[in-house]
Amino acid sequence: MNPPEAALFTRIADSFSRQGLMHTLGASLAAVAPGAVTIRMPFSPAISQQHGFAHAGAITTIVDSACGYAALTLMPEDKAVLTSEFKINLLAPAIGTHFEATGRVLRAGRRVHVVQGEAWAIDGESRKQVAVMLATMMVIDSDTGLKS
Amino acid sequence: MNPPEAALFTRIADSFSRQGLMHTLGASLAAVAPGAVTIRMPFSPAISQQHGFAHAGAITTIVDSACGYAALTLMPEDKAVLTSEFKINLLAPAIGTHFEATGRVLRAGRRVHVVQGEAWAIDGESRKQVAVMLATMMVIDSDTGLKS
Amino acid sequence: MNPPEAALFTRIADSFSRQGLMHTLGASLAAVAPGAVTIRMPFSPAISQQHGFAHAGAITTIVDSACGYAALTLMPEDKAVLTSEFKINLLAPAIGTHFEATGRVLRAGRRVHVVQGEAWAIDGESRKQVAVMLATMMVIDSDTGLKS
Amino acid sequence: MNPPEAALFTRIADSFSRQGLMHTLGASLAAVAPGAVTIRMPFSPAISQQHGFAHAGAITTIVDSACGYAALTLMPEDKAVLTSEFKINLLAPAIGTHFEATGRVLRAGRRVHVVQGEAWAIDGESRKQVAVMLATMMVIDSDTGLKS
Repeated sequence: MNPPEAALFTRIADSFSRQGLMHTLGASLAAVAPGAVTIRMPFSPAISQQHGFAHAGAITTIVDSACGYAALTLMPEDKAVLTSEFKINLLAPAIGTHFEATGRVLRAGRRVHVVQGEAWAIDGESRKQVAVMLATMMVIDSDTGLKS
Repeated sequence: MNPPEAALFTRIADSFSRQGLMHTLGASLAAVAPGAVTIRMPFSPAISQQHGFAHAGAITTIVDSACGYAALTLMPEDKAVLTSEFKINLLAPAIGTHFEATGRVLRAGRRVHVVQGEAWAIDGESRKQVAVMLATMMVIDSDTGLKS
Repeated sequence: MNPPEAALFTRIADSFSRQGLMHTLGASLAAVAPGAVTIRMPFSPAISQQHGFAHAGAITTIVDSACGYAALTLMPEDKAVLTSEFKINLLAPAIGTHFEATGRVLRAGRRVHVVQGEAWAIDGESRKQVAVMLATMMVIDSDTGLKS
Repeated sequence: MNPPEAALFTRIADSFSRQGLMHTLGASLAAVAPGAVTIRMPFSPAISQQHGFAHAGAITTIVDSACGYAALTLMPEDKAVLTSEFKINLLAPAIGTHFEATGRVLRAGRRVHVVQGEAWAIDGESRKQVAVMLATMMVIDSDTGLKS
């Protein structure tokens, strides 16, 4: 990574490390670029639903975080991000050894960023898309006391 | 609970106990009625986001499960439920000692059930609504091998 | 109507009368209260889809307008409203002699209002809910040049 | 167009011509391919909102129709399509001389198809994306009496 890339990764990684839920789910930050972030999460019984697949909530959580951080990469340092709302379609049961979620900013506005998310189930060579999300992320002023 | 109520609670509780993610989040089944289910979850750093509030993903997870189980209460015993899609609006930061999510079926169709969900942050006497969800739940045939 | 009610109705009716699409669809403003607005639309072949029912787009349009105006009733006079996003579930085919859409504000924030919408198909004594919406409405500053 | 392409176009155009609302909005079928449909609509005061832009409901209507027909292109002849639900984000005010909406199927299932939609405002050489949609379309059995 060149210095700007490394600085951006560090900014997002600092915030990511403060998300207790990412630790709880075993999720890690896989890639950071301007307007796009990828998060990985291994399957484990700790994130399962009643049929033994990954719970829609666990998949949703990493897609939401990927979308939020994708938005944050495009915000000035004195801004923070909060999820306003999102919609997710589950395309297939989340069956795999691990999962990958990517958020990509579609439009970065002054007050809100619209972000598209995807989740993939991975098993060896196989990659299958399991979810698609549309999310609205709020740009929050630093004077609210929120760290980014 | 009278016998039908107890049987319904047992049916949902059996499935709930197989959701590893509910255990991981510390969530528990609080109430079951035909067409309505409530789930509780205490706050802990294990479910936090970067500002120290409960992560939108954790809130979303219990609302999704509450909506799915609300739908399941209205399905015959030989059917299973899968989340098709949902949309959630986060109304306020999820700050509280615990959270409560309720799903209520708006329309039970032959193939899909439409369910409305809510989440509340609770702190002593204070109850504040923090999220509202609209979800579509699929009615799955038992011959798919899925247990309800 | 008392004077404040009449003033609020006039404010919304002025804006409504500038929506060419409402005229085109034959829609009219039925009720205005703080945080809640109702719009009516008769069925006609001009709003049909291919099966002869009312088109989801026509139903969606009046629910979106009802939600936007419900938000506007709670905004200061120097603000305007723009739809940021919404999600709608169609609960039943839109079959009736006319339709009614109501928007009700769930949360009025400084920057966005979250609004719930409903649509009903009416035929004589029969009223059947045909849609439910969750919408996010932006509060726009007057210095953008937009009239409310 | 080769014969299969022409047959597919005819199938969609037959249904499109029965949508009274498309005539009312001045919309026309611009392109049909397996899994993708494009609809065009000129701006006119008849589709405006209160600020003089195209109404979000008009934009939504052509995106919904494009998504529904994109789904129908992948369904057997004895099936019909109904919109189950959708979510739309408005990315920018709909200002242009005409608008284009495209639906593309993301996943064609046995019971539902998930479709992504886009809308663009066009003015001379300029093309600006004004909306993005995620939609769930139901595959309806012909024995319901619905024509496709």
